[in-house]
Amino acid sequence: MILDSIMKPKAIAVVGASTRAHTIGSELMKRLIEYGYKGKIYPINPKGGVIEGIEAYKSVADLPAGEVDLAVIVVNAKFVLSTIDQCHEKGIKGLCVISAGFKETGSEGAKLEADLLAKVREYGMRCVGPNCLGVVNTNPEISMDACFAESLPQRGDIGFVSQSGALGGGILNILKDLNLGFAQFISIGNQADVDAETALEYWENEPDVKQILLYMESIRNPANFRKLASRISKKKPILALKAGRSAAGASAASSHTGSLAGADKAADALLKQSGVIRELSLKDLFASAKAFRNCPIPKGDRIAVITNSGGPGIMATDAISEYGMQMAKISDETKAKLRSFLPAAASVKNPIDMIASAPIEHYRQTVETVLADPNVDMALVIYLPFLGLKDTDVAQALMEIKAAHPEKPIVGVFMTKNEFFTKLSDMDVTVPFYMYAEEGVDALERLNRQRIWMERPEGKIPSFEVDRCAAKKIFAQALSEGRAELTTRESIDVLDAYGIRICGAGFAKTEDEAVAIADRIGYPVVMKMTSKTTSHKTDVGGVRVNIGSADALRAEYRDLIAKLTEKGLIDGLEGVLIQEMVKGSREMVCGIATDPQFGPMMMFGLGGVFIEVMKDVTFRVAPLTDVEAHDMVRSVKAYKLLEGARGTTPAQIDKIEETLLRLSQLVADFKFVDELDINPLMISEKNGEPIAVDARIKMRVAEAEAALK
Amino acid sequence: MILDSIMKPKAIAVVGASTRAHTIGSELMKRLIEYGYKGKIYPINPKGGVIEGIEAYKSVADLPAGEVDLAVIVVNAKFVLSTIDQCHEKGIKGLCVISAGFKETGSEGAKLEADLLAKVREYGMRCVGPNCLGVVNTNPEISMDACFAESLPQRGDIGFVSQSGALGGGILNILKDLNLGFAQFISIGNQADVDAETALEYWENEPDVKQILLYMESIRNPANFRKLASRISKKKPILALKAGRSAAGASAASSHTGSLAGADKAADALLKQSGVIRELSLKDLFASAKAFRNCPIPKGDRIAVITNSGGPGIMATDAISEYGMQMAKISDETKAKLRSFLPAAASVKNPIDMIASAPIEHYRQTVETVLADPNVDMALVIYLPFLGLKDTDVAQALMEIKAAHPEKPIVGVFMTKNEFFTKLSDMDVTVPFYMYAEEGVDALERLNRQRIWMERPEGKIPSFEVDRCAAKKIFAQALSEGRAELTTRESIDVLDAYGIRICGAGFAKTEDEAVAIADRIGYPVVMKMTSKTTSHKTDVGGVRVNIGSADALRAEYRDLIAKLTEKGLIDGLEGVLIQEMVKGSREMVCGIATDPQFGPMMMFGLGGVFIEVMKDVTFRVAPLTDVEAHDMVRSVKAYKLLEGARGTTPAQIDKIEETLLRLSQLVADFKFVDELDINPLMISEKNGEPIAVDARIKMRVAEAEAALK
Repeated sequence: MILDSIMKPKAIAVVGASTRAHTIGSELMKRLIEYGYKGKIYPINPKGGVIEGIEAYKSVADLPAGEVDLAVIVVNAKFVLSTIDQCHEKGIKGLCVISAGFKETGSEGAKLEADLLAKVREYGMRCVGPNCLGVVNTNPEISMDACFAESLPQRGDIGFVSQSGALGGGILNILKDLNLGFAQFISIGNQADVDAETALEYWENEPDVKQILLYMESIRNPANFRKLASRISKKKPILALKAGRSAAGASAASSHTGSLAGADKAADALLKQSGVIRELSLKDLFASAKAFRNCPIPKGDRIAVITNSGGPGIMATDAISEYGMQMAKISDETKAKLRSFLPAAASVKNPIDMIASAPIEHYRQTVETVLADPNVDMALVIYLPFLGLKDTDVAQALMEIKAAHPEKPIVGVFMTKNEFFTKLSDMDVTVPFYMYAEEGVDALERLNRQRIWMERPEGKIPSFEVDRCAAKKIFAQALSEGRAELTTRESIDVLDAYGIRICGAGFAKTEDEAVAIADRIGYPVVMKMTSKTTSHKTDVGGVRVNIGSADALRAEYRDLIAKLTEKGLIDGLEGVLIQEMVKGSREMVCGIATDPQFGPMMMFGLGGVFIEVMKDVTFRVAPLTDVEAHDMVRSVKAYKLLEGARGTTPAQIDKIEETLLRLSQLVADFKFVDELDINPLMISEKNGEPIAVDARIKMRVAEAEAALK
Repeated sequence: MILDSIMKPKAIAVVGASTRAHTIGSELMKRLIEYGYKGKIYPINPKGGVIEGIEAYKSVADLPAGEVDLAVIVVNAKFVLSTIDQCHEKGIKGLCVISAGFKETGSEGAKLEADLLAKVREYGMRCVGPNCLGVVNTNPEISMDACFAESLPQRGDIGFVSQSGALGGGILNILKDLNLGFAQFISIGNQADVDAETALEYWENEPDVKQILLYMESIRNPANFRKLASRISKKKPILALKAGRSAAGASAASSHTGSLAGADKAADALLKQSGVIRELSLKDLFASAKAFRNCPIPKGDRIAVITNSGGPGIMATDAISEYGMQMAKISDETKAKLRSFLPAAASVKNPIDMIASAPIEHYRQTVETVLADPNVDMALVIYLPFLGLKDTDVAQALMEIKAAHPEKPIVGVFMTKNEFFTKLSDMDVTVPFYMYAEEGVDALERLNRQRIWMERPEGKIPSFEVDRCAAKKIFAQALSEGRAELTTRESIDVLDAYGIRICGAGFAKTEDEAVAIADRIGYPVVMKMTSKTTSHKTDVGGVRVNIGSADALRAEYRDLIAKLTEKGLIDGLEGVLIQEMVKGSREMVCGIATDPQFGPMMMFGLGGVFIEVMKDVTFRVAPLTDVEAHDMVRSVKAYKLLEGARGTTPAQIDKIEETLLRLSQLVADFKFVDELDINPLMISEKNGEPIAVDARIKMRVAEAEAALK
């Protein structure tokens, strides 16, 4: 498998091993030996000698050929390339370059890193790093700690990728306290070769790795990440902490879609579309990992709360309801059973309050009875210290019940001393325990989110019959005139070519033509200027609505010409669009924006004057599947308006989804589309049809020229 | 002072003291003695004997008179009243009734509790409980632990009120782990007499109590709470966890304001208006308390982040920017100083990354240099373990720097083992330490929030000249006709009487009258039916807009009459309102809703069709101060629309505030107003004036009748 030479080596060469205290070359040797690496270790040091009790080789060139799988390299950056040459000669296929001094230091280092990658590719090697903390495999048959972190790794079920070395070390340090462990750990550093996606793919069928955790500051190949993650997340949970949410946004954009697509929108959309559970802090990342470590995926979201204190029961109920999950409706049968042994002062409604004096037998009986209720999918069990009851005993009871009921998640909330959690870290824990009610509910929500993702249909990217040639011609024409932006007319014609419902319209260059078109469409009409120089029409009075008659149209036309002449804007005027006046009070928006890293993104939401104020919009990375289009429309608040709130005609929601999917196809066909707004996408009051009333399209000129050549 | 007899007693009688293990009467005696209570303890037990080495009295009646201040009562509920009588005879003024069996058990218990309260009042006593955990005062001159929690209390600066006994016990248990301590603790139980407000008032000038923490499930007297809390929170921080956010909402309301005013909106508004920092989990409550315990209130919100690892630095930056606080701009001078000792690979821009190898001297020099920068108000210092550096040493260095710079908050984020935090709990810590970057930023945000509150002007409740008589007459008229709801015309007339700008209008009972009014106002006009039976006009076609001429008006009038006749709704028709057609695209809403517990609340936000969908509204508990009206208008997203987004006329925001203040005065004058909507409050495109275009008012009939008699 792709990373076996690195992650499951039969022998390791440590190039730059050292006896000098507090150097990486020394610490690394110590960790390898202390953690009990099962293969052979070859320390390499130009001075030779004995390092950690092992006779060192003076050079990689002295190694026996074909013996070593992995070279961990800690020498000065300038010696790394020649070391790789030597490794190649000895048949070494795996590299872990810990040495710093590459891309992170500037352009010279970047050059060195490019050379490194070239060699790795040439030699058919795989390489972790450079500028990283190392790799770990806790499988007892490997027992490899090739890291220089302070602590030895804990064995567990997590595959962890860290883009930050120091952070990775920090995490290795605190794992035991968290009752968590790694199956494998890769500090990808500058990710010259191996990156998060390589790890995902490697771990897809690795039985040791039951959940994958990522700490990322960037995503290198978003499309590939999406492909891999959305497949693998259906088999094992993927949790990610993506930092850098507040990084300076994309450069000033001229469209609505562009300006709303902040730096983090694309990453957020991509993770969501890939089924990756995004956490916003390390704390949450580990809390969730603890849940997945110890719980099955539930069958539903109905939660029973069992407590010996009212307060935390209420707090849990608050948190459950804020997540939109359900408080399980305890059946009458279950209630009767509970009443048979709980004291009169207890409450058998959910949250089930056994009251403070509940002995361990009540915990046991109550949890078992409640879990047996078919209306209950998950249980949150709260314990507050009470005279004569030991927290570890209650925990033990829960773990026994869990063993008997492995199919339903049980989460413990033990508001007790740190001591308890310290004790846990020395026990074989099978139930996740948290200190506070909200943390317990967070855990259940993550399990539930994974359930929803796993139940979600795959989704397809549909293909519509469109007039691609017509669209291409329009783009080419604009380009030939040196314009990056299409005119309103051109934009609408492109949409029309892609089968998007546009409003009845005609293009007129004279007053008489305008009237002829309006007569054909029927009054009232809207008149819009279309110009090769002025794209924000409204600002210059270029949009006239609700024109009721031919006379009125003539008057508006003359007024427009006069105004534009007065403002010196008449030269760019192409003519006017005469459009049917679509009656509707619901203005939506949809569009395309381009993220510099993630490529085209689709937007949908509430349009009109509210776009920028309400920001009730949602993004997805293109291309869009039918399932994603379905989700998108339903994930904005304005969806309620579409359903037909307050007596309005329900919108044709399938048509809105189709509009989004057709746009997605448009930007797949013409990748140089930089920004596109349909604003408004008016919902017709007559039949709920979504109609593109206005549109703007902007290209990236150089790309377009290359594509259309 | 009000609670001295309970919180600072010179002698305590424990009524129901016992030698039987695991009974409250035994545990309580043990705690009192173990914690070293400084006064005299009188155990009372009908059997007499020796309890915890003290000769017991057989009855309160046997006590010496005038010696005892506080009786802690743990006897069966049925003996509590007679015990109180005996206490009174001995001159005891303070009671702490731990015994359960009162209001919490049903109506008989409630009766017993009412009798208890009557006795307490009659005898001029103060009483904590019943059904509580007890009270604590850790002042070394008192050293009173009159609680039966498992752990002894830690000394600290917090005054804590818990409405849940079990939870209070749980908290006492974990305080040491959290590096926190109580000055005083009151478990208010059923709060028959002493409640959170009593405690607030008592602690206002208690030097031992430097911050007040509340765990509440209800607020008994919201107006009094607001008065006390908003005064005291200017002197010391008040933090509250108010549970029960998801409690079933208020009963179905017929107005927008009513339906948007969910169960928790009033509590949330009240806490905000009172300057209380609301926390949503115990974890956050204690994390914030740790910040206030160890930090001064900052002078501003400019934060410097100092780290030895890039990842957590980015995470902190994310969190700071999401709170809307500022990353401090490090001065060039400071940068130069930092460069003089930090390695080349370090980053001296904020976040300041000293890189992983930073020795303790770099921590010390960097933090001192950065704190000296006048552009920095607060510092967040991040530490990840690095070879050869000890976490406790770094912590010690930070505490030394803090001692030298007491005026700027320093917060430590130490992503290290639990061990570190356990060690801290045995140290005299003066800097708050957290494990994760986000927790550290949360802490700084709370400090900053307290700063903003303390800097906020007091605010006044203005009094406007209004025509109260006219409004009263309208209410009385509706009442006399047996209606709880005013007609549209009546509602608008009430607003007019209170000086709220309504649109030019007249009331017509015939077609000719309607035309005469429209001729006077000028076309276009709006025609609205006003009916004593139909309040949702739009649903029955009762609103006709943009009527351009007398002919058109006649046609619409006839059509309306025909439609209403057809639907059998003609009988309730009072007539039609002819209104000026206010041109404007911005429809706001303001109104009044009544919370069953908190009374009248003011609402403001985005109106029109978006009200229920966008829920872009904000609430405040009435009466409103000018400062609160100012805040309200600015706290909705739609505020941007009011400022004049996209070329619209800026709204007259002072007039909107005045509208809210006048409404507040209206509901103060007529307390029986149950619901009121001004929807839309249209922002005139002409001059930005807010104009009440439509209104509905509903009364609580019985109250109104009593008030208007």
